[in-house]
Amino acid sequence: MSPAVWQIAESARQASRQFATIPSVQRDAAIRSAADAIEQTCQQLLEANAKDLAVADVMLTSGEINLASYERLRLTDKKIADMSRSMRAVASLPDPLGRVLQKTELDTGLVLEKISCPIGVLAVIFEARPDAVTQISALALKSGNAVILKPGHEVEHTASLLFHTMRHSFAKHGIAEDSVSLIAGREAVGELLNESGLIDLVIPRGSKQLIEFVQANTHIPMLGHAEGICHVYVDAAADLQMALDIIDDAKTDYPAACNAAETVLVHEAVAMAFLPLLADRLQAKSVKLRGCDQTKAILADSSIASVDDWNREYSDLVLAVRVVPSTDEAIRHIHTHGSSHTETVVTEDRAVAEEFLAQVDAAGVFHNASTRFADGYRYGFGAEVGISTSKLHARGPVGLEGLTTYKYVLRGTGQLARTYQGANARPFSHRQLSTE
Amino acid sequence: MSPAVWQIAESARQASRQFATIPSVQRDAAIRSAADAIEQTCQQLLEANAKDLAVADVMLTSGEINLASYERLRLTDKKIADMSRSMRAVASLPDPLGRVLQKTELDTGLVLEKISCPIGVLAVIFEARPDAVTQISALALKSGNAVILKPGHEVEHTASLLFHTMRHSFAKHGIAEDSVSLIAGREAVGELLNESGLIDLVIPRGSKQLIEFVQANTHIPMLGHAEGICHVYVDAAADLQMALDIIDDAKTDYPAACNAAETVLVHEAVAMAFLPLLADRLQAKSVKLRGCDQTKAILADSSIASVDDWNREYSDLVLAVRVVPSTDEAIRHIHTHGSSHTETVVTEDRAVAEEFLAQVDAAGVFHNASTRFADGYRYGFGAEVGISTSKLHARGPVGLEGLTTYKYVLRGTGQLARTYQGANARPFSHRQLSTE
Repeated sequence: MSPAVWQIAESARQASRQFATIPSVQRDAAIRSAADAIEQTCQQLLEANAKDLAVADVMLTSGEINLASYERLRLTDKKIADMSRSMRAVASLPDPLGRVLQKTELDTGLVLEKISCPIGVLAVIFEARPDAVTQISALALKSGNAVILKPGHEVEHTASLLFHTMRHSFAKHGIAEDSVSLIAGREAVGELLNESGLIDLVIPRGSKQLIEFVQANTHIPMLGHAEGICHVYVDAAADLQMALDIIDDAKTDYPAACNAAETVLVHEAVAMAFLPLLADRLQAKSVKLRGCDQTKAILADSSIASVDDWNREYSDLVLAVRVVPSTDEAIRHIHTHGSSHTETVVTEDRAVAEEFLAQVDAAGVFHNASTRFADGYRYGFGAEVGISTSKLHARGPVGLEGLTTYKYVLRGTGQLARTYQGANARPFSHRQLSTE
Repeated sequence: MSPAVWQIAESARQASRQFATIPSVQRDAAIRSAADAIEQTCQQLLEANAKDLAVADVMLTSGEINLASYERLRLTDKKIADMSRSMRAVASLPDPLGRVLQKTELDTGLVLEKISCPIGVLAVIFEARPDAVTQISALALKSGNAVILKPGHEVEHTASLLFHTMRHSFAKHGIAEDSVSLIAGREAVGELLNESGLIDLVIPRGSKQLIEFVQANTHIPMLGHAEGICHVYVDAAADLQMALDIIDDAKTDYPAACNAAETVLVHEAVAMAFLPLLADRLQAKSVKLRGCDQTKAILADSSIASVDDWNREYSDLVLAVRVVPSTDEAIRHIHTHGSSHTETVVTEDRAVAEEFLAQVDAAGVFHNASTRFADGYRYGFGAEVGISTSKLHARGPVGLEGLTTYKYVLRGTGQLARTYQGANARPFSHRQLSTE
């Protein structure tokens, strides 16, 4: 019988304690060793993956999964090489632990440091993505966290072999085996989400349904986003050619991405000039437009459907278009219908740009740039844990830093708090010291 | 009929939007004006407080509240002056908003800034503390957040007058009225905790029961701590005199504080020498000791009770004492029974100190200093929102920074994501720029 979920979580908690004494070089070596082992296990991985694909074939036929999911599930030589390369890239990033974030002298011989440290135990729940197993494990180990993986059942054979391969490599480098654990089955998810005393952070990666399920069923803090409803606002003072290019990129570069644009808001002063250009450009790229009444009146094109819902994440070659009377109304629309992911204004008017950047409440607010830049790699983080639309802990693309917390380390020489209070209180110096 | 809780939350959300355009000087002036108004309302405040006290008298007699709660509830001229002074101190702190936390050039003419901004809407649930109304409102306004206050019913008259006085002052300075709201009644708390779409952060301030109730009944992120079970570990290489002073300070300076020590762990190598000194020192200060069997054997004092639970926060002049065979066992005890609040090691052995500081997983880890230093004022934060024992967002004493989040602001000149990918990808420069 496999151990209960709480036992796995308890073992992960114990394993997480070891990281306080495992230096960066040892964690990196373990990640690189796992990357090598995965490449060497290529043939067996393809065989395990074939078992998953056999099941997925049936699900594809019955419509239980779609072709995109099927493709994500399918391993190839190249994908395995990519997985290993990504792990090595994580190993090469700077150590996120032990950084002195702030250093304050409270008094002579009493120095406070704020130091980055691991969060503890992560739980990652994902669907049909074998690469999530390796990427998340590498990121967790790099940041000194234990991790419990719950793969989708469609990917169980592949995930299990990846897991055993990594765990073996990690153990060879002195990393406690329980630093990485795997659980299976839908029931286990429910049990996992109840372990708020043992699990510090849950990271769901997958469909909106998965993320909403996790959100509704746990008190464990969550990192992620349910949806990305991103807007491009074409202001009255927009460079229209630039607006076309940005919308094209934001919509068609990778329509299924969370940072793809779903809705374009066009200031009424340029609607007449801009909308026909937009229709030409996007229809040539097979993008279906859905317009507000004003948009439809201007385009006078019966092929343009009405918008049924401004809150839709199409994740497809479909774009909603609305004409707005003002920047204020554009901002109001974004706050009402957006998901606080990434919002762009296209304008040559610096005052409008700054108004938009200041007022729009979202993880990313852009001026004259594609929404697609909202990404950990593009931001220069080296690796991405995910994109967060929550406002606490980590917001926007989250790099390794999002898998760390901090603690306050105070080094004294016998100081007492009562010395610093009352009638003859000794004053604090509170002098900021260099953290270098 | 008073508006429903969701309507109040929705109005607070709308009001929170204004802060994007309200400069620091205006927020500060509004806080100072409210501080003045509260001093000028002194007489009426004492009258309102008298009504609360009349009810509290009955509750005190019936044992529904204790004397400490009654005293916290009671206003005096001096307390009102202190409240105003604290508000002015908050107004004088540096603006926590609009700080450039990081600045990266992604490419020529494409610059990413990570900028501090308000969280949005805070909900603060507290018990019999009138000063919580003013302090939290000042902190919220300073950090550009709307706040919904739910005072305990014992303090309703006082809180209501404080609230109306502040709201009036804020409005005079162009701050939307709904930036501060007040709700009453137990039912309202349940409704409030359900508004996870409108409320970004809940801050419970009060008893362990209150905090555990909030924790169990909401999906809104919470800032706070349920308990502070802090330890002092007296190592084999401790300066015993220093250890006595630190324990005395940590236990007796303010026993009800969350950063007071609850348990002392003594290395067995010094137990024989140290425990009699400890007993003398603390018994002179009326501290009751509760010991493990070994402690009781060494002290041979029938007045020392057995420990019934290492997980107790006594919040009183009671101290648990345990003899441990090693630093490892001390750390294990802390991880098993502590609340990850603040832990101190007393030792002259630098290696032991560093081992303790690195391995103990808590918001504060101290060497040769009293646990009582875990406090926003002592850390130099100027003001304290509370002390957090959660690991995400904010840990340890939380200053104004804990009431802010950040957003990524990207200023471009028409850049497209697809330019930077594929075969002829243009490289990113990812150059860190100065944030000054």
